[in-house]
Amino acid sequence: MSESTIGVIILAAGQGKRMKSALPKVLHSVAGRPMILHILDSVFAAFPKATVSVVVGHGREQVEQTVRQAFADREANFEFVHQAEQQGTGHAARCAMDSAWGAQVTRKKLPVLVLPGDLPLIPVSLISQTAEALGRAHCMRLLTTELAHPTGYGRVLRRGKTGPVLRIVEERDAKPREKAIKEVATSIYFFQGGFLKAALARLTNKNAQKEYYLTDVVEQAARGGKRIDVLQWADPADLRGVNDPWELAEAGTTLNHRIIRKWAIEGVRFVAPHATWIEATVELAAGVEVQPNVVLRGATRIGEGAVIKAGSVIEDSQIGARAQVGPYAHLRPGSVVGDESKIGNFVELKKARIGSKTSIAHLSYLGDAVVGSHVNIGCGFVTCNYDGKSKHVTQIEDEAFVGSDCQAVAPVTIGRGAYIASGSTITKDVEPEALAFARSRQVNKAGYARRYKGAK
Amino acid sequence: MSESTIGVIILAAGQGKRMKSALPKVLHSVAGRPMILHILDSVFAAFPKATVSVVVGHGREQVEQTVRQAFADREANFEFVHQAEQQGTGHAARCAMDSAWGAQVTRKKLPVLVLPGDLPLIPVSLISQTAEALGRAHCMRLLTTELAHPTGYGRVLRRGKTGPVLRIVEERDAKPREKAIKEVATSIYFFQGGFLKAALARLTNKNAQKEYYLTDVVEQAARGGKRIDVLQWADPADLRGVNDPWELAEAGTTLNHRIIRKWAIEGVRFVAPHATWIEATVELAAGVEVQPNVVLRGATRIGEGAVIKAGSVIEDSQIGARAQVGPYAHLRPGSVVGDESKIGNFVELKKARIGSKTSIAHLSYLGDAVVGSHVNIGCGFVTCNYDGKSKHVTQIEDEAFVGSDCQAVAPVTIGRGAYIASGSTITKDVEPEALAFARSRQVNKAGYARRYKGAK
Amino acid sequence: MSESTIGVIILAAGQGKRMKSALPKVLHSVAGRPMILHILDSVFAAFPKATVSVVVGHGREQVEQTVRQAFADREANFEFVHQAEQQGTGHAARCAMDSAWGAQVTRKKLPVLVLPGDLPLIPVSLISQTAEALGRAHCMRLLTTELAHPTGYGRVLRRGKTGPVLRIVEERDAKPREKAIKEVATSIYFFQGGFLKAALARLTNKNAQKEYYLTDVVEQAARGGKRIDVLQWADPADLRGVNDPWELAEAGTTLNHRIIRKWAIEGVRFVAPHATWIEATVELAAGVEVQPNVVLRGATRIGEGAVIKAGSVIEDSQIGARAQVGPYAHLRPGSVVGDESKIGNFVELKKARIGSKTSIAHLSYLGDAVVGSHVNIGCGFVTCNYDGKSKHVTQIEDEAFVGSDCQAVAPVTIGRGAYIASGSTITKDVEPEALAFARSRQVNKAGYARRYKGAK
Repeated sequence: MSESTIGVIILAAGQGKRMKSALPKVLHSVAGRPMILHILDSVFAAFPKATVSVVVGHGREQVEQTVRQAFADREANFEFVHQAEQQGTGHAARCAMDSAWGAQVTRKKLPVLVLPGDLPLIPVSLISQTAEALGRAHCMRLLTTELAHPTGYGRVLRRGKTGPVLRIVEERDAKPREKAIKEVATSIYFFQGGFLKAALARLTNKNAQKEYYLTDVVEQAARGGKRIDVLQWADPADLRGVNDPWELAEAGTTLNHRIIRKWAIEGVRFVAPHATWIEATVELAAGVEVQPNVVLRGATRIGEGAVIKAGSVIEDSQIGARAQVGPYAHLRPGSVVGDESKIGNFVELKKARIGSKTSIAHLSYLGDAVVGSHVNIGCGFVTCNYDGKSKHVTQIEDEAFVGSDCQAVAPVTIGRGAYIASGSTITKDVEPEALAFARSRQVNKAGYARRYKGAK
Repeated sequence: MSESTIGVIILAAGQGKRMKSALPKVLHSVAGRPMILHILDSVFAAFPKATVSVVVGHGREQVEQTVRQAFADREANFEFVHQAEQQGTGHAARCAMDSAWGAQVTRKKLPVLVLPGDLPLIPVSLISQTAEALGRAHCMRLLTTELAHPTGYGRVLRRGKTGPVLRIVEERDAKPREKAIKEVATSIYFFQGGFLKAALARLTNKNAQKEYYLTDVVEQAARGGKRIDVLQWADPADLRGVNDPWELAEAGTTLNHRIIRKWAIEGVRFVAPHATWIEATVELAAGVEVQPNVVLRGATRIGEGAVIKAGSVIEDSQIGARAQVGPYAHLRPGSVVGDESKIGNFVELKKARIGSKTSIAHLSYLGDAVVGSHVNIGCGFVTCNYDGKSKHVTQIEDEAFVGSDCQAVAPVTIGRGAYIASGSTITKDVEPEALAFARSRQVNKAGYARRYKGAK
Repeated sequence: MSESTIGVIILAAGQGKRMKSALPKVLHSVAGRPMILHILDSVFAAFPKATVSVVVGHGREQVEQTVRQAFADREANFEFVHQAEQQGTGHAARCAMDSAWGAQVTRKKLPVLVLPGDLPLIPVSLISQTAEALGRAHCMRLLTTELAHPTGYGRVLRRGKTGPVLRIVEERDAKPREKAIKEVATSIYFFQGGFLKAALARLTNKNAQKEYYLTDVVEQAARGGKRIDVLQWADPADLRGVNDPWELAEAGTTLNHRIIRKWAIEGVRFVAPHATWIEATVELAAGVEVQPNVVLRGATRIGEGAVIKAGSVIEDSQIGARAQVGPYAHLRPGSVVGDESKIGNFVELKKARIGSKTSIAHLSYLGDAVVGSHVNIGCGFVTCNYDGKSKHVTQIEDEAFVGSDCQAVAPVTIGRGAYIASGSTITKDVEPEALAFARSRQVNKAGYARRYKGAK
């Protein structure tokens, strides 16, 4: 924490009952990455030296492990605080501020940003603007936004129409006149640390739910004569929370749209931008073309000028420059396709490393395979990589030609420049430049067709 | 009709010329179910004991048969009335009221709800609210809605701005001042039965089209000093009609969106909610994950925690709990996949019953097959179920292992725990625990590759 | 030019740096057709005898060649003018008007329509309305539109609120009061030819960019006491320009939507209109059904009542009436499918001509093939059409029956009514009505399964 200039509390203890899932709420993925990691990405993009207290509760081991693993190089930036009972957002924040982490933050007089763990769409700019240094006179900053349909949200009550904030009124307590207010509070706050510490200590749970609410700090500050700064955020879409699988799906759609737009502006061509799914972790070079219904997942990298044809699904794989993939190719994790190679329709790769200028154009499965460059593999090729017990490797060296409907029973090697006749099951190694075949001679029986039709 | 408390007239006689199809208009499907059935679903959800008169004309046998088949357990709830000539909505309603059904409804003093058969999106709540008991003073209830762009719709003319309804003015008859009215009439009405009967008898067809219009009943009532209740429906999207294939496609999109949203709130995870197609007849358990571009049709059931991967198409099939299907699996009608089984990419099933914990992971076709549990089927397996004349069954018993690129020429049985070597065409039964192979020995010819390349 | 009544200048010289591509900007495709061709399609639809000057610069040979090839039958309608340096839209128009083409247009007193080459969505009606004959008093017509958010666009400054146009004010020069104006100029103009010629000669480049702007002609005209006609276009979406790959993708989405809507109204049924991609060059008959995620490209034609099932990709191919294709069929260029034939899932055709009532239902590849009528081809059939050097043809005559998992090593012919046993590699011709097989006898070894599992 020695170099930190800001403390960040992430509220990540909630169960999220409406998610109807055993997974802790903040671990649900949006665009292929757990929500809480999106938020932490934004935090560190805005404040690389932030010190973060993650308040955990439901599924806390799982949350802690996910965060630690994703930010293994930032171990010193994190503390995890256990909120044993869910007694409200105020209580959660107090767990953090009452911890050793909170004591140090207070001693160092760091300001504190409070972020809920279920707002996966907040952009970096929102975090940096919310956490801009407070003026001397301000004890906190409240993030608000205006909604056309504010029903259900806490309204921001001000003195007069645009005067200082007095308090947040929840829907159930709002009078008709207050319900007409369109400015609503978000659950994002930025505090002068000492003020937060003191204010949390004074919160009470005298309400229907018997919980401690962070929103009550606002009224406390106003009554105490303290000044509250307000940042009104223009785009409410950035602040959409996730409370059920529908909202999760909608957040995913929004984030996916942003990802596509970003890559398009950087030079990627999308035929159907609203029908392409690219996870947040994928990287695309300029000049890549992506056709409709493509799904790119995980740590996938696509090289310059590659064409990913309709409906291809690629996970944790690398595609070389000017390669062509699909339509309907499925590249499972660990696949590597070299420059200018062609992986055609209904082809599945799994842990297959393919060289450059190689063609695997039709209806094939290559699992646990190492294929060289300038290789031609016909239609219907299958690596028999699994014998019921373990997986074995198939090697096909440069310039080999494999006819259609062949199988390689691994472990097996097809040597450089070898030729495999169509319809062969290859069980033994084939030397370089050799011809291999393993098929039966064709027999024609004149006039026999009729008796076989319908009689097998 | 003995227990009925409401009569419902469905107007289903129209041809729908703009549909450009021989199929009667109300039989066009939205989300996999004919429009008229969606409407009847909503009617019975609101009023399980409703007695329904379906007014049929174009393609009446087909309409009648479709409705009878879908509601075979409700035969007593239906009457079909033939409207021989299309003389307008008023004439259609009169056909129903002048029938034996109408006589009985009148005698029992049942109220009558009139619904057009081409509004596939009306929700149950709309029906139950429209058909709430009329006050003593009211002879009918008119359903209206407000449109931002009302051009083309019949405007609701009132005394003053918000006073009693006087009449409906059609677009062509509307004066400029009337065209500014944004409240439009829908073609949904709820009547005191005796009033309807009498009013229909007084309708005339003295207009350009020489048709009897149900909307004229409104003016008749108002002129007669009768009071008309109005229900203004908030969401015009619920009332969108279908007049051409574009509107049909748009209605399908809307209904699909509602179906997805419903399942999401019940706990189904959708990666791409706007790129998933689920027919109204499908059922999903909580915790199912559905990836982009999936199509689920007919009487399909998906078990808890199953994952349906990108682009899979499933029709009239059952998927067990925690099973994995796809990407790009095609399950045709009558397929059953057991718990925790895996059906992988480019696999087609047709009338195939698969046990639990079985794997069929790649590029295979199983038609008319019965496969046990703990079976492993390699890539490129094919059931030769058709001999040019009829279909035969393939049986594969528990714990069998089928290598890659094998074919089973049905009828044939592969016994429990048997092992089929890769590349074998199986034409005879294989006993339990036996090994079977049917492939040629591999021959390598050193140095012969060159002469074969380009020379076959 | 002898019969022309209008001159059209297309501004097509720009590089389009933000496109991040070597391709000249106007050649980027929208719905499968280069932008500039869409614009020219609309021009000739409105004015079949227009004489067109295309002002080219960046990649001019490529632009010229693309246009000439697409409009080979209209060679006389085109002139290409080289704008060597990009000195602004005014300079580009002057290049055209100072050329031999311009001299002839001026001599013939033709009016001149100026269109930018990067507005792919302008409809025919916009062109014909913009280029309606000018009144005697008007020297030009300016096309404007109203934007809710006009920031960044040149505002139309008028005398009073609705009086004559005075000039166009660019964003950077606009005073706050002017920024509030919502009427913006487009880059589409229609001129009295003589006026244009003279006005261009008077343009100066005394501005920050040192460019000649066509917009300045407006102020020139107004100051000179000339009257400017204005056409305010209602739908700004028609005027969206393409400046980066994101805008290109969005324009593609809009155009695709229009194409789908057009076909739907003509009687094509779409299950998922927003998830179907149909290029501008495709033609569909009435009664065709198109399921989700289908991609139709190039010169594809689909016959009456054909069903294109989910996810099929069809390029430059013809499908007969009532044929069924897919799901997930891939028809590559040059394929022809006869009436009532069935091409099933995971089947790839390439230059394959299929007769009528033929079935190729599962997991097959037919390249360079000629297949007759009433043929049945089993699952996993492969034409081995490439021997590493060249492509060869496979012929399968009427009423042949090909079992599953067969390969045809081309060139080869399977005669009329022949029967090929499952699992055969066919290397020699099969006579009509003959039976052919080429597979090994099956051997069962009792009790041997165990030793093979995990031991190969």
